[in-house]
Amino acid sequence: MLWIRSKSLLKEHVQGFRRQGKSIGLVPTMGYLHEGHEKLMQVARRENDVVVLSIFVNPTQFGPLEDFAAYPRDLARDRRVAEKSGVDLVFQPDKEEMYPTPLEVTVEAGRMETVLCGRSRPGHFRGVLTVVSKLFHLVEPDRAYFGQKDGQQLALIQKMVEDLDFPVEIVPVETVREEDGLAKSSRNVYLTEEERRVAPELYRALSWGKAHWQDALYTSDPARLVHEVEKRLQAVPLFRIDYVELVTYPDLKAVTELREDQTFMLAAAIYLGKARLIDNVLFGGVSERNR
Amino acid sequence: MLWIRSKSLLKEHVQGFRRQGKSIGLVPTMGYLHEGHEKLMQVARRENDVVVLSIFVNPTQFGPLEDFAAYPRDLARDRRVAEKSGVDLVFQPDKEEMYPTPLEVTVEAGRMETVLCGRSRPGHFRGVLTVVSKLFHLVEPDRAYFGQKDGQQLALIQKMVEDLDFPVEIVPVETVREEDGLAKSSRNVYLTEEERRVAPELYRALSWGKAHWQDALYTSDPARLVHEVEKRLQAVPLFRIDYVELVTYPDLKAVTELREDQTFMLAAAIYLGKARLIDNVLFGGVSERNR
Repeated sequence: MLWIRSKSLLKEHVQGFRRQGKSIGLVPTMGYLHEGHEKLMQVARRENDVVVLSIFVNPTQFGPLEDFAAYPRDLARDRRVAEKSGVDLVFQPDKEEMYPTPLEVTVEAGRMETVLCGRSRPGHFRGVLTVVSKLFHLVEPDRAYFGQKDGQQLALIQKMVEDLDFPVEIVPVETVREEDGLAKSSRNVYLTEEERRVAPELYRALSWGKAHWQDALYTSDPARLVHEVEKRLQAVPLFRIDYVELVTYPDLKAVTELREDQTFMLAAAIYLGKARLIDNVLFGGVSERNR
Repeated sequence: MLWIRSKSLLKEHVQGFRRQGKSIGLVPTMGYLHEGHEKLMQVARRENDVVVLSIFVNPTQFGPLEDFAAYPRDLARDRRVAEKSGVDLVFQPDKEEMYPTPLEVTVEAGRMETVLCGRSRPGHFRGVLTVVSKLFHLVEPDRAYFGQKDGQQLALIQKMVEDLDFPVEIVPVETVREEDGLAKSSRNVYLTEEERRVAPELYRALSWGKAHWQDALYTSDPARLVHEVEKRLQAVPLFRIDYVELVTYPDLKAVTELREDQTFMLAAAIYLGKARLIDNVLFGGVSERNR
């Protein structure tokens, strides 16, 4: 397994792979790899000749009051996990390598960036789309793998690929969960024992919404469904709700009516101790394809 | 010469070129080709195995009061010029092909987009950078050719390639001029005979600035140089000045002092009858490399 820290060396290898006609699968991460990432690497391994894993805690997607400095890092363990998952090349640049000069040009998502997490994390998705564009240009992947857990991120990246005609296929991969339902996340490490015990209530509340969305009470009044989920989250004393939101998927538009032929995403973010946890469920329309 | 109107067919050809290990040079244009474009195609022909010319009058880079509908078009002539210039493939999509769904994701240039033409054409460079990103992803060129006449556009595209790590080399090509100095432009066709006669005064005024920038009077007071150029433009009764601006090149920053070791761009835009004409001169530092 190659471990590469410079863009120029990465590009040499990418050119080599392309000359040999090899397909490239990219798994972009911020490291501190968990089973969710392993799943991404497994799927990438199955579908491509070469699997590239990128590890980069991207400063431009963190707000000034967010956890950039504290974000967990463990490169020794990441190396073992990547090796075990059959990764061929790890690209792990530092921020001077990724941003050698002050950034002027960015990729933006307009309206789709102002809902859900975008509302409480202004600039976050600009940072994400910009760094993902950079990685796509550096690695020139045939396919790139993203988890459904970051549902808005996935929808935005798919729309970016469509709007900017990136020659890459985005492969969504379902959320990997702990046995009690908590979505795997690098940020779960922030939780105390007590917080960890109540954390699955996030997914439980969303799942309740998924189980009941077709009730006559809610189909004509989706706000009521959101309110019911909110009440369930409020009932957990340690939770502080950031948002609960129901949007169409993948276009992330407001929902006035729940119809069978459309796909919806019910998503929430909560603060729990030092962590901000997000999760979502998809239902209706083509959702089964994605779950 | 291939003439292609669909993205999917274009991509098939691009994949074919790449499989054969052929280098691709892209000349992006809005058509109505003139000698400036011919120069771009000549240079591209010399440096690449395959030359792709794109012709697309991009609606998203025109403001609501601008000349999108009136922009001159002559595809029959463009075909002859492209053929004569040794172009291998013309990509000429319509706007439904380029923008099949409402655009949400765009490429933006922040500060560099707010000076010069960007100030009087809000949204223009967002449109330019977004469509150029699309063309780069569709054509996957090794090199792309842009005229120095659109100096801010060139600087922005170079910065975009740098900031987003596009795997493409931007090749600047010097401005082609009429014998009397007027820069070749598709928009010159808007000029009446009388307007055409005075149009070269734009370049003459900028050239005066380039000839005098090292005068002691101006090196410590660049605003005075700009003012002198402005006076010369104001002296032409048919001209209405949009802006005269002096900036560092290629970072487009304000100039407080004229120093030998820096490159500067003195640029202006004027309204002349139905046309809005732009031009610029570079001087100082490494400018000779570009001119």
